[in-house]
Amino acid sequence: MPVENPTRPIWFAPEGAVVQVIDQRRLPHRLEVMAIRSMDDAIYAIREMVVRGAPLIGVTGAYGVYAACAAAGDAGIADGALMAECDRLRAARPTAVNLAWAVDRVRARLRALPPADRRAAALDEAGAIAEEEAENCRRIGRHGLPLIEEVARRRSGPVHILTHCNAGWLACVEHGTATAPIYAAFEAGIEVHVWVDETRPLNQGARLTAWELGRRGVAHTVITDNAGGHLMQHGMVDLVIVGTDRTTGTGDVANKIGTYLKALAARDNGVPFYVALPSSTFDWTLTDGVAQIPIEARDPEEVRRIQGLADDRLVGVLVPPADSPVRNDAFDVTPARLVTGFITERGVCGATAAEIAALFPDKASRG
Amino acid sequence: MPVENPTRPIWFAPEGAVVQVIDQRRLPHRLEVMAIRSMDDAIYAIREMVVRGAPLIGVTGAYGVYAACAAAGDAGIADGALMAECDRLRAARPTAVNLAWAVDRVRARLRALPPADRRAAALDEAGAIAEEEAENCRRIGRHGLPLIEEVARRRSGPVHILTHCNAGWLACVEHGTATAPIYAAFEAGIEVHVWVDETRPLNQGARLTAWELGRRGVAHTVITDNAGGHLMQHGMVDLVIVGTDRTTGTGDVANKIGTYLKALAARDNGVPFYVALPSSTFDWTLTDGVAQIPIEARDPEEVRRIQGLADDRLVGVLVPPADSPVRNDAFDVTPARLVTGFITERGVCGATAAEIAALFPDKASRG
Repeated sequence: MPVENPTRPIWFAPEGAVVQVIDQRRLPHRLEVMAIRSMDDAIYAIREMVVRGAPLIGVTGAYGVYAACAAAGDAGIADGALMAECDRLRAARPTAVNLAWAVDRVRARLRALPPADRRAAALDEAGAIAEEEAENCRRIGRHGLPLIEEVARRRSGPVHILTHCNAGWLACVEHGTATAPIYAAFEAGIEVHVWVDETRPLNQGARLTAWELGRRGVAHTVITDNAGGHLMQHGMVDLVIVGTDRTTGTGDVANKIGTYLKALAARDNGVPFYVALPSSTFDWTLTDGVAQIPIEARDPEEVRRIQGLADDRLVGVLVPPADSPVRNDAFDVTPARLVTGFITERGVCGATAAEIAALFPDKASRG
Repeated sequence: MPVENPTRPIWFAPEGAVVQVIDQRRLPHRLEVMAIRSMDDAIYAIREMVVRGAPLIGVTGAYGVYAACAAAGDAGIADGALMAECDRLRAARPTAVNLAWAVDRVRARLRALPPADRRAAALDEAGAIAEEEAENCRRIGRHGLPLIEEVARRRSGPVHILTHCNAGWLACVEHGTATAPIYAAFEAGIEVHVWVDETRPLNQGARLTAWELGRRGVAHTVITDNAGGHLMQHGMVDLVIVGTDRTTGTGDVANKIGTYLKALAARDNGVPFYVALPSSTFDWTLTDGVAQIPIEARDPEEVRRIQGLADDRLVGVLVPPADSPVRNDAFDVTPARLVTGFITERGVCGATAAEIAALFPDKASRG
């Protein structure tokens, strides 16, 4: 289904009482919408990356519980089915912690209710999570803005920000995480320019971040994932800001594969490296990201075949020899020692257990 | 023109008295040959990357001088034309130093001869350079082999070597540079496995290195350029070996964009990072690679459109939004401090001016 001018990647359409999402696999060349009418639809959307990005995966998970309730009819979903369906959903992608967090939150509310009341409560709770994440991202923008203002004050010319993957509004609900300070600076009239890593294998930077920024009129340049170190060596990057899929309470960051390499280059060149996140992305139970965060192994076909536009058709082309083995790790972990700071909905803090806990004393203590 | 089973990427075909090269733009899906009959052909082949790789660019440049002589007919090429044509050829690609080195060497020999004798002398000199580079690569293999043997002795299982871009026989004449120790180890019966960076934007790893290794039966796995740091963090890389396009006498290495990021990850994880090169790749006039080596800016279309096979046709697909700006730096510089050592035709040495000069006292003194 085509859509005109979306400002969110997910929404509830009251006509039809159905959840809809932008099919991000087809951007930037096609803008199409998929309806989520069942738990299977939600799992498909998350696993096949119709939707992606830690906050959006969480919100989609919450709406997935609603879809399961809706599919159960007026009698409502029974306890056993609710538990089983939520477990199935939680397993759709292993790295992003927001999915488990959001599903557990909706499930906890529903368990206290009779089955017939669960559908309405799920919709209400999913909507609340979506609005909270949108507000969190707005605050991330507000708290990150001074980091960009500081560079702009120091010298003339655009502030050059490098980002990896897509941590924009397409990955969240509004504003984005890594992009929130960028959009805030752009709206405040600061001249910003974004280096967009193309982000192999699925090219979320080249396809999604470039599309988002271009639609908003933010200056940007797509580069290969290989280029960031060279640009930093030559003083062409002022700040790196990325998102994260799971963050330990000690400050280690699991994000799209390749993030670690940019963090190393940033440190080698004295470029500040920030990670923007809503606190739903913290996993308070973990203390060692490299050892403890499960890294999703995805289908090698995502590396082998690259999708793009040829003769106005979306086509996948095979790049390596057909018989060469391929490996596709989706994430890597950037150790806290390489992270300058976190930009959160409550403010900016350093990447240490003590500073994170000082900003989130109510949450860190639950770990 | 199709070819059956090449073992070199360039050769002189006596029937027709013409130089032929594999068209590397069409590998791995097509194996085709292009004839170089003029200086324009040679410049086209180098600039459009029909041929690529520092040693092969040099050899192609040498044969390009022969082609210019041949095109001049029996009277032979005059002094003025020889100088002008060689200058044009030298400028075809700015980063690889072997091109200037090889062209200058052939030109110097020809200038001492009457025009009518230049054609035969150019062919002889180009052939000599080709054979010397083949022999240099064989020696690089012999000198690099103990580095792999040492890992194999230390523990069981395959020795995992990561390489970036293609520094194989396709980039040279035979054996390759980075691949020479790998092929030598493979032939010595050591179990090796190569992590092949796909090497955006032109995917020389996924297309060329994977093809080379697969044809030879060497175990390998294609990975995205983003993945190497993650693999090193998890102890899955024993050695990194890459090639180089220009190397300062002080040990800084210009190689395919993204090499620097792998060197940073290698240092962060205690993985040895070696650069394999024939000494023709040293630029003895330079002392600071980041500041002094010119980095070629190539056509952004190489990033925008990715070529591969769809329905048995070679097709280019557009990945980012059509109106997003793109930047395409072809190389970066890895500072000597990140290089464990150089594997050269004379042996292995550390990446310092003193150690390089000790191995090449006859050459370093010319800088």
